[in-house]
Amino acid sequence: MDLIKVLENKTITDVSGFKATGVACGLKNNGNKDLCIIYSEKKAVAAAAFTTNKVKAAPVLLNMKNIEGDNIQAIVANSGNANACTGDDGYEKAVLMSKKTASALNIAPNEVMVASTGVIGVPLPIEKIVSGIEEASKNLSKTGGIDAARAIMTTDTCEKIYTVEFHLGDKVAHISGMAKGSGMIHPNMATMLSFIATDANITKSMLNKALKESVEDSYNMISVDGDTSTNDMVIVLANGASENILIDSEDINYFVFKKALHQVNTELSKMIAKDGEGATKLLEVKVYNACSVKDAKLCAKSVITSSLVKAAFFGADANWGRILCALGYGGGNFRVDGVDVFFSNQIGSIQICKNGGHLEFDEILAKQILDEDKITIAIDLNDGECCATAWGCDLTYDYVKINGSYRS
Amino acid sequence: MDLIKVLENKTITDVSGFKATGVACGLKNNGNKDLCIIYSEKKAVAAAAFTTNKVKAAPVLLNMKNIEGDNIQAIVANSGNANACTGDDGYEKAVLMSKKTASALNIAPNEVMVASTGVIGVPLPIEKIVSGIEEASKNLSKTGGIDAARAIMTTDTCEKIYTVEFHLGDKVAHISGMAKGSGMIHPNMATMLSFIATDANITKSMLNKALKESVEDSYNMISVDGDTSTNDMVIVLANGASENILIDSEDINYFVFKKALHQVNTELSKMIAKDGEGATKLLEVKVYNACSVKDAKLCAKSVITSSLVKAAFFGADANWGRILCALGYGGGNFRVDGVDVFFSNQIGSIQICKNGGHLEFDEILAKQILDEDKITIAIDLNDGECCATAWGCDLTYDYVKINGSYRS
Repeated sequence: MDLIKVLENKTITDVSGFKATGVACGLKNNGNKDLCIIYSEKKAVAAAAFTTNKVKAAPVLLNMKNIEGDNIQAIVANSGNANACTGDDGYEKAVLMSKKTASALNIAPNEVMVASTGVIGVPLPIEKIVSGIEEASKNLSKTGGIDAARAIMTTDTCEKIYTVEFHLGDKVAHISGMAKGSGMIHPNMATMLSFIATDANITKSMLNKALKESVEDSYNMISVDGDTSTNDMVIVLANGASENILIDSEDINYFVFKKALHQVNTELSKMIAKDGEGATKLLEVKVYNACSVKDAKLCAKSVITSSLVKAAFFGADANWGRILCALGYGGGNFRVDGVDVFFSNQIGSIQICKNGGHLEFDEILAKQILDEDKITIAIDLNDGECCATAWGCDLTYDYVKINGSYRS
Repeated sequence: MDLIKVLENKTITDVSGFKATGVACGLKNNGNKDLCIIYSEKKAVAAAAFTTNKVKAAPVLLNMKNIEGDNIQAIVANSGNANACTGDDGYEKAVLMSKKTASALNIAPNEVMVASTGVIGVPLPIEKIVSGIEEASKNLSKTGGIDAARAIMTTDTCEKIYTVEFHLGDKVAHISGMAKGSGMIHPNMATMLSFIATDANITKSMLNKALKESVEDSYNMISVDGDTSTNDMVIVLANGASENILIDSEDINYFVFKKALHQVNTELSKMIAKDGEGATKLLEVKVYNACSVKDAKLCAKSVITSSLVKAAFFGADANWGRILCALGYGGGNFRVDGVDVFFSNQIGSIQICKNGGHLEFDEILAKQILDEDKITIAIDLNDGECCATAWGCDLTYDYVKINGSYRS
């Protein structure tokens, strides 16, 4: 029996007590949806993680205050403008977003989380936002999750949603997440925008603990371009609608909940990595047998972040020397002559480096594996018992194209 | 009067007592020159800096031993194969390169420095190398500097040479350098291959001191792709042929020498940055008024390394928000609301960010400045009195193209 069941095509509004919608308020020139509200009908506890970038967007600064409260019932988010590097004016506009949303939903302004994503440094067109909030707050529904997920997309090519169902004692609980990623993706303590709703009944402190631990091994292990954004955030709202016995300690239900939450975070992270700007391939780097988890993570992240490694995978070129090079400057400890490297996916598996050096391998099979759109790079350090996984994507012409004219 | 005079089109063989040549020994499929020898007719002291990558190429490991000696009279270098991740076999081949060169030149093997650059992890075709060494050692000449500079090129589009003349007391001295760069460029303590010859009379310890200090502000301040190579090295040979009074302390001549050496290193660094793989533009990031040199360097290097910043410059897009973002995750201290950003070159100068935020600016002028092939990004942190400069290039389609099929 699967403890955690994946619910295909379900969204954040399939979680008990959550409504949402997405609307087009004119921030995107193409008329696509660009503003969403997620609303919990019941009071909810929240946990969040924010970017470690010193340059923090206005909504991040506001949320870092509001997250301290006992109740968060709504998230309002816009795409098309990051409201970052916008000074006091930007901060006042973020506050106004929370006030307008709160008054439409009859809650307090500090019970609203605010998020923005898009171009940095352009003043937020607040009139459009305000009219968008008015429209969205009237249209909240139990089927609006997909529209909400689409409204936070920027250069994303698809919405990113993931929903699971699991048992907490004799009650059925759910966790559903929606995320956007694409560029400026190299999270540190949090990532891009990821909003997660659950009907589990859990205390704020336990929710916080579960999120913090999960983030380290999910969002913080992906990279599209090495650029840690000014706007990264992940927010989890838990409204207790599943009526399980309150999770207030590290009991069995906490571990079930945490496992489910981590599955949602990990799958959303992989969706973000796979849909990196211009990407054609999802790359998964698994480091085995490192002498510490820290070393395993440093090694995995250095390989997934290397422009040269990423470009080689775009070209389906089994240039394993670049992997060794990236390991070497990543700061993790390992013995160079202990490194084995393998490529694998559904086509097969092939070893392409042994003891840190050259190995005759079947170039045709290697090319077949690398031509697929998902590739696992397994790196055995033969140096201990710890492991780590990181996700990313290839570096392509389209990444350059998208980012050569992002403001236009 | 210029203390340091630049000698256009002069090479390493225009320095008294140095001969060189470059030959084609068959490592490059296109028949281009791929092996060079640089030889000092007189005994010479040497200083060097090597990559900090844990994965060090065989010639780097060998040179780290040989540099301890009192006399280095020759450098033998090949392109087309990095002799990295090649294990004991690779090391033995590097030793053989030093032995063959030494015997041809009638010096000791530990008086030879060895360098290799090219693809990683492929066994070195030593027969070709040996025949190349035999041919090169017979063809050393006072006009072979340009051939030597060309023989170390990989994806470089042009040779990189720079020569200066200056006075040490009543004697005329010279420093000439040749370098190769292009990809896997993010040096740390040293860089790619850079070979420098001088006829100045200087002790090994003072030469070492001058090089170490210069490297920090030249090669270590450039980035093409954030990848620190396995093969980076810079070597300076000083043979004393100019017969100046020996520089053995921090006297006036030491500072003149050091200034000249730093000019050579800095100009070669800029040539490497400008000729980064696929690059169309040289980017110079100048950080002013930081509260420490360390903070200034962290800020400058973070901006020059950002894929998003580099892609925006390729597209001539004045997306200054990405510069703020890169400052924010770079680890340097600064006040976000104190940051001013300017773009400038021979077209003009324009401020595009004030107090860390939005500023109306002339988009047409900005575009004109960004359309040029050299752009200075000046960042005033208004936070202290320290400054730093870093160099790099834009991120282009051709970078992806070159690195998608490097082995082919």
